[in-house]
Amino acid sequence: MNNFNFHVTTDIRFGKDRLEELPEALAQFGKKVLLVYGGGSIKKNGLYDRVTTLLSEQGFDMWELAGVEPNPRVQTVKRGADLCKEHGIDVVLPIGGGSTIDCGKAVAAFALSGMDDPWELVLGRRGYTGPALPIVTILTLAATGSEMNVGAVISNPETKQKLGFGGPSMLPSVSFLDPTNTFSVNHYQTAAGSADILSHLMENYFSRVTGVDVQNRITEGLMRATIANMRIALKTPADYDARANLMWASTLALNGLTGVGKGGAWSCHPMEHELSAFYDITHGVGLAILTPCWMAHVLNEETVFQFATYAREVWGITETVPELAAKMGIQKLYDFFKECQIPMTLPEVGIKDERDFEAMAQQAIDHSSIATAAFVPLQKADVLAIYQACMTESQFV
Amino acid sequence: MNNFNFHVTTDIRFGKDRLEELPEALAQFGKKVLLVYGGGSIKKNGLYDRVTTLLSEQGFDMWELAGVEPNPRVQTVKRGADLCKEHGIDVVLPIGGGSTIDCGKAVAAFALSGMDDPWELVLGRRGYTGPALPIVTILTLAATGSEMNVGAVISNPETKQKLGFGGPSMLPSVSFLDPTNTFSVNHYQTAAGSADILSHLMENYFSRVTGVDVQNRITEGLMRATIANMRIALKTPADYDARANLMWASTLALNGLTGVGKGGAWSCHPMEHELSAFYDITHGVGLAILTPCWMAHVLNEETVFQFATYAREVWGITETVPELAAKMGIQKLYDFFKECQIPMTLPEVGIKDERDFEAMAQQAIDHSSIATAAFVPLQKADVLAIYQACMTESQFV
Repeated sequence: MNNFNFHVTTDIRFGKDRLEELPEALAQFGKKVLLVYGGGSIKKNGLYDRVTTLLSEQGFDMWELAGVEPNPRVQTVKRGADLCKEHGIDVVLPIGGGSTIDCGKAVAAFALSGMDDPWELVLGRRGYTGPALPIVTILTLAATGSEMNVGAVISNPETKQKLGFGGPSMLPSVSFLDPTNTFSVNHYQTAAGSADILSHLMENYFSRVTGVDVQNRITEGLMRATIANMRIALKTPADYDARANLMWASTLALNGLTGVGKGGAWSCHPMEHELSAFYDITHGVGLAILTPCWMAHVLNEETVFQFATYAREVWGITETVPELAAKMGIQKLYDFFKECQIPMTLPEVGIKDERDFEAMAQQAIDHSSIATAAFVPLQKADVLAIYQACMTESQFV
Repeated sequence: MNNFNFHVTTDIRFGKDRLEELPEALAQFGKKVLLVYGGGSIKKNGLYDRVTTLLSEQGFDMWELAGVEPNPRVQTVKRGADLCKEHGIDVVLPIGGGSTIDCGKAVAAFALSGMDDPWELVLGRRGYTGPALPIVTILTLAATGSEMNVGAVISNPETKQKLGFGGPSMLPSVSFLDPTNTFSVNHYQTAAGSADILSHLMENYFSRVTGVDVQNRITEGLMRATIANMRIALKTPADYDARANLMWASTLALNGLTGVGKGGAWSCHPMEHELSAFYDITHGVGLAILTPCWMAHVLNEETVFQFATYAREVWGITETVPELAAKMGIQKLYDFFKECQIPMTLPEVGIKDERDFEAMAQQAIDHSSIATAAFVPLQKADVLAIYQACMTESQFV
């Protein structure tokens, strides 16, 4: 086990009927609030009205950054930070899924960064040590875990870049996690969000660091809980416990718990970020498409034990020949995503040909340490091969 | 799943060779430090010298509360708080296991409580809302989880009471978790501490609240990691990864992660606290003795499914008849504790007869909500029966 720090101070308020606590949570920072939200689903489901009515009654002044994109853009961050500076905002309140929260976190940091260009902030990657406005979040989608970590992912359509960045000041101070706010998330987004959770768990799980039983057993448990409750939530969208388990799993998957003591670079996220950057596809779907093909590509004599362990512990595979067990585990994951009606090839999400693969593979290498620090280091040719394998349906056993 | 708060702000510094960070961790609170430690094992293994030399070099002023008992006493808390008041202590630094840390937390709270009698503080139980001096811990035993939670357990030999109490201000600000500090923990204390970890996991696991897959899968995983690494550490005391897994498991078992969203009262701890209060036995050993007998006592038609799940997920029992599977799981736990050379009857730890059982059973009821809120509510006759079952060796299948 590697040395690590674990210092995650977000105040989690989990459960239903807790919105009345919001004014107190915000007021500790001030009365001028920037609401951040996306395409208006919170207006349809009534959450917007409930929040703004409550805050108006309690004497808060509100400004709005609306229309945050599913892959939030650097121009939107600029727009939000301008509002903060112009109106002396005290606290940023993203209401939405990971994209909205990521955008709110970037706004909070850029507003106090002293930088002229928000893209400069993003290009600093994980090294932001400057201040940020306080952040209080209301989560409406179980997926990214952004509600309890220091990171954010921002896209720049002009340069076709989608990059993660962050720093300690960007950790949300308070996050409201009400599973009922995810009842209206549709089948496709529920599946995609859950695939994102599973991807975070698998990215942290497959590591070259040994002696990490605690982290591995926790991560396997979270994968099993996610799979089981994903099935229920897709059939019965208003099943409270299923939504609650998905929501809490999403938070724990990426708050440090499953990754501490391990280190190394992720594999599928850097490859997916290029798909989203070039084609603006749904992040979780991109991850679902890539992951089984990545697994098959990196399955070798050195990794087979870990994939066989994964197959046994997560999918209950009893096959004792490690290579076959490993392949059966990969097949199970692929079949499960198909069962959840996730499109499992790149053409199905609009990437009809390979014209951008060279450029995307090069950027995946350039924008991450995938070539040196990943579970199995991936060179450009490896990334290309994985993209190509995702062009058609797969059979792994 | 029940509503819950999760707000655990302790700054965990996990790993070896990190003591050089201690001055910075303390200095944020001031330069006057109260060292709290137990029977002197930190003097034998060199930790005391390393800490005091380092802090002297950095200009800290130190006072000492030494000789904290394995079941720390209220008089010791008073002695420590008097030192804090007399010398204007800025920060309390317990170096030791759960007893030492619990004592340090109680000292930190009582010093600022404004109360005259430390037992008054303890009798307030979980309701302490007053201030406490900042607490920085150096953990030397994987067991209680006190390094990352708000609770403390203090004994009063005069009244034969051992009670848990706590409040938010008693959460350690920084905790140093260096697995090498546990290399010198002997076989008996390693086994007892690990049994305490397992007990915390089982107390949280067996609950009447449903729809908590995330918590249950995490808890099963922590139990498996604890069992596997307990075996290694008992054979090879200086195995770094085994000690690291036990240490991190001990912290996560009782920092809220495994208990949030569930509620209800614990079962074995209230019964064990009376054993310790009357006979001053080792807490973890008392728990190991009680737990299998408690399980057998509460196994019934309503609980059999949960015990069978526990048997399958933790011990790999493949038996499909639920009642038999459940009993096999209980037997596995009992046999495992015996394999670890934990004395598994009360007479082996000096409780030779039943003369105090009536009084202890009554106190277990009076000092907890075991009779109303436990997984299976236990009345005085139940507690008596469990104590009596612990007088001889058991066979569960």
